[in-house]
Amino acid sequence: MAQQERAVRTRQAILEAAGAVFAERGYGSTRISDVYQRAGMTKGAFYFHFSSKEQLAQEVLDTQMVSQTGHLPGYAREVKLQEAVDSALLVAHRLHFDSLLQGSIRLSIDQGSDLDRRPPYQAWVDFQTEVLGEAKERGELLPDVDVRMYGELLVGVFSGVQIMSGVMTGWDDLEERIANLYSILMPLIATPETLAELDISPDLGRRLMAEREA
Amino acid sequence: MAQQERAVRTRQAILEAAGAVFAERGYGSTRISDVYQRAGMTKGAFYFHFSSKEQLAQEVLDTQMVSQTGHLPGYAREVKLQEAVDSALLVAHRLHFDSLLQGSIRLSIDQGSDLDRRPPYQAWVDFQTEVLGEAKERGELLPDVDVRMYGELLVGVFSGVQIMSGVMTGWDDLEERIANLYSILMPLIATPETLAELDISPDLGRRLMAEREA
Repeated sequence: MAQQERAVRTRQAILEAAGAVFAERGYGSTRISDVYQRAGMTKGAFYFHFSSKEQLAQEVLDTQMVSQTGHLPGYAREVKLQEAVDSALLVAHRLHFDSLLQGSIRLSIDQGSDLDRRPPYQAWVDFQTEVLGEAKERGELLPDVDVRMYGELLVGVFSGVQIMSGVMTGWDDLEERIANLYSILMPLIATPETLAELDISPDLGRRLMAEREA
Repeated sequence: MAQQERAVRTRQAILEAAGAVFAERGYGSTRISDVYQRAGMTKGAFYFHFSSKEQLAQEVLDTQMVSQTGHLPGYAREVKLQEAVDSALLVAHRLHFDSLLQGSIRLSIDQGSDLDRRPPYQAWVDFQTEVLGEAKERGELLPDVDVRMYGELLVGVFSGVQIMSGVMTGWDDLEERIANLYSILMPLIATPETLAELDISPDLGRRLMAEREA
């Protein structure tokens, strides 16, 4: 393994360990030693890649978006709007097991740190707005749909439904609730023809992941 | 002042101080001494009313709902559905200055305590579902509206839009965003006649409070 590739993997392993620890303990109660011990590394290896807990947390926050559909090699959709639905249901699915995502989501929600929590929201808004904008150009959206406004709305409402599902059921009903949310909102955005093509089912995230494995 | 009335006021003063401290520091970093000092009370007075930080926080959580429209003496609406809009925009308005509400909201969102965070969500869902149910009986809703499902949805989406507004603008645009959210969702619920009667403007919470002062 080339040295550069090893460095990339080490860095990624630290980020994943950090995600797990931040998810469990939150920012304030996490110590750097928890992270490098979880990653099975030395203090020296850690500080080669990150200079502080704050920098580490900020990076965990910043990687939240990393285009969720980017996890799917060869991913492409004929109906562009499907990508908005896919990304939401992928996150809903991955939250059950992806500790980096869990940690990033917790950091973006919990108050009480000096972290800049805007980047993940902004990245999600930009992504959703871009998808809606391209869907609009392709004629998939109803006329007069304000793509920036709906881009922001989709991110806000997802966050709240996710939090409430976490509190009430420990995410057991998350995918069902997100599918329900999108089933309610998509008719406000999509043309009837596009709507008829959309796949908005609770197991969509799971299926997309399974297709990737295959 | 009768002894009982004084006890009620003392208790309320402790809750308000607790709300302020929880809002600033979160559950983990709050000490009981911060709370009674903020309330200008002795340790003894505090423990006369509350036995632990956990009990105090749980009560702050439980008071979040306390029917927000219950703050408005003589409050009643001809259009029942208006009460759902009122309650949302009242909370959006009161969040700017009501420290008990701020603390309660923070406790209900932040992870990392052993508090039962379900009661405020459940109380809000019950309230919204009850309002929607009565609105439906009065013929204000479209046929086939699932009142429980929309009751849950309204609470979830409010939470997320609130959090995102807090992160992105420190709540500067909260009332505007909540009004926008309700403007989008109400046409899915209300008959056209009811919709035409609804007041969904960003300054609704402020006006309701001002009417109360008058």
